[in-house]
Amino acid sequence: MTETRWLNEVTWDDQGLVPVIAQDAETGDVLMFAWMNREALSRTVESGEAVYWSRSRRKLWHKGEESGHVQKVREVRLDCDGDVVLLRIEQAGGIACHTGRRSCFFTRLHDGNQWQEVDPVLKDPKDIYS
Amino acid sequence: MTETRWLNEVTWDDQGLVPVIAQDAETGDVLMFAWMNREALSRTVESGEAVYWSRSRRKLWHKGEESGHVQKVREVRLDCDGDVVLLRIEQAGGIACHTGRRSCFFTRLHDGNQWQEVDPVLKDPKDIYS
Repeated sequence: MTETRWLNEVTWDDQGLVPVIAQDAETGDVLMFAWMNREALSRTVESGEAVYWSRSRRKLWHKGEESGHVQKVREVRLDCDGDVVLLRIEQAGGIACHTGRRSCFFTRLHDGNQWQEVDPVLKDPKDIYS
Repeated sequence: MTETRWLNEVTWDDQGLVPVIAQDAETGDVLMFAWMNREALSRTVESGEAVYWSRSRRKLWHKGEESGHVQKVREVRLDCDGDVVLLRIEQAGGIACHTGRRSCFFTRLHDGNQWQEVDPVLKDPKDIYS
């Protein structure tokens, strides 16, 4: 029988989800933010690759299943309230974002009143998802 | 009149909130995770210090108001869907967590089945909040 006590120690929200931050284990860059349910976290730890819960598609989502940009999990952390997960990962292809950028956080607030896209597209999404 | 178009470009959830990741601007360490409403984000940008929305206390929360551990905001970023904010900050006192640790993510999954507290308490919370 699989030991699941550690999964019970996570504080799941009223939809059975927990927010997840994916951080590059080498550089410390925050690459993306997503959600997991219990099964997603369990599969992530068993397989060693990030599996999220897609709230829009309402299904498990093995990150990189289409793009090849899988995330190898080096470390799983939990915050002080037990309700946020931090994954320290190795990002295959160096691209976490569906826009073809390294990180999803490529938009920066400029002068306190204007969002600017500041990081480059590394690969055309057409070539990623073809 | 204050320019607020940039606030409209954030995708607020059905409770008017957005998840926020606070990251140390120097080291890249992920320090904490919290939520903001529109007023919290507006005040954060105006004042240059992180102001969150406390979901449990249902009020604005100027981080560090009791502990002195304020967060000076160096950069505000938004993710590709516009629904997650990343703050790159300078953490006063080097302590972001109410437990007296540097980061809230001090608990690590060991051997895929056991949570372990791996980071030290830098200051006794009794001394922080007295």
